Amino acid sequence: MDYATLLRNRRSIRDYLDKDVDPQLLREILDETCLAPTAGNNQPVKFIVIRKKEVMKRLSDESRRNFLAEVVNNPRSPMKRYEPVLRDESFNCFYNAPCVVYFVGPRDIKSLDVDIGLTAAYFMFGAAARGLGTCWIGMGANIRDKGLLAGIGVPGDCRIVAPIAIGYPKEIPAAAERHAPEIVNII
Amino acid sequence: MDYATLLRNRRSIRDYLDKDVDPQLLREILDETCLAPTAGNNQPVKFIVIRKKEVMKRLSDESRRNFLAEVVNNPRSPMKRYEPVLRDESFNCFYNAPCVVYFVGPRDIKSLDVDIGLTAAYFMFGAAARGLGTCWIGMGANIRDKGLLAGIGVPGDCRIVAPIAIGYPKEIPAAAERHAPEIVNII
Repeated sequence: MDYATLLRNRRSIRDYLDKDVDPQLLREILDETCLAPTAGNNQPVKFIVIRKKEVMKRLSDESRRNFLAEVVNNPRSPMKRYEPVLRDESFNCFYNAPCVVYFVGPRDIKSLDVDIGLTAAYFMFGAAARGLGTCWIGMGANIRDKGLLAGIGVPGDCRIVAPIAIGYPKEIPAAAERHAPEIVNII
Repeated sequence: MDYATLLRNRRSIRDYLDKDVDPQLLREILDETCLAPTAGNNQPVKFIVIRKKEVMKRLSDESRRNFLAEVVNNPRSPMKRYEPVLRDESFNCFYNAPCVVYFVGPRDIKSLDVDIGLTAAYFMFGAAARGLGTCWIGMGANIRDKGLLAGIGVPGDCRIVAPIAIGYPKEIPAAAERHAPEIVNII
């Protein structure tokens, strides 16, 4: 796919078709994802793929509850507006996507967040190039239940940086508004 | 440009032609860069463009000295192997690129590192799609001199996350080695 088209098609998708992602296709996307640059070519990112609906529901519920507690405890939270949604026990923070991939990595890697930011962009483009949609679900990282963390296989020395939902979009929405680049200085 | 070609062409470039990057072309790349997703579409990234050779030299020297001090003070640093290079006063940490763009953002934005990781990937692809090369110079972020920080215009509430060199590559090197995706679990 042409890069200009890819730029238009890569959107955060919050509504998915009830259609599975072929495991081979996902593997192909993950292979490509690993071409992303990382600090010192350290490649610290590990992936956990969740396809089972009941496991996704547990992860969503745990994330929702922890996130709600944070919002309730901080009356000045910028996330205050989400409180009613977070109180809805049927809310699925993965937007009913058929699959979510957790991007995790060792806690002691200082560059882990930027490494996973770069890697996630590759994953998103690789998905969009194949007609798939993705959404980085920041809220979905709020997993504190040690049993659940161990249950999905997060290694003890690792932390979750990005849960990214993946699936076939019901539609590709219009681009979210962007401001012009803030160029502070040109020297 | 086709995305498959772009994936092959996007490399970390460490040797540049002595050829300027057209300001309009750079602006076009930065416009496209701002299509990157950020947490809550917060778009916290600001850009500082450095083209003057003498300013790049000061930034390189300051970064090199601070990085060297860190390596010297930590005998177990994984960067120990770079010590001889860091002691070389003629070393240019931007690999003689004609331009470097500093990606900075507010210190109080928790997601700043992942936001800039995502944004940097767009910048790198946008450059590669136009025949340009880039390199994220982690070392180049070690600017502590307050006069220099103010001189290039880093806002007081911001920190540097990524200095990215940009220019025309002398050649596109072979891909650095990558391991297969580490898929910890599929559930």
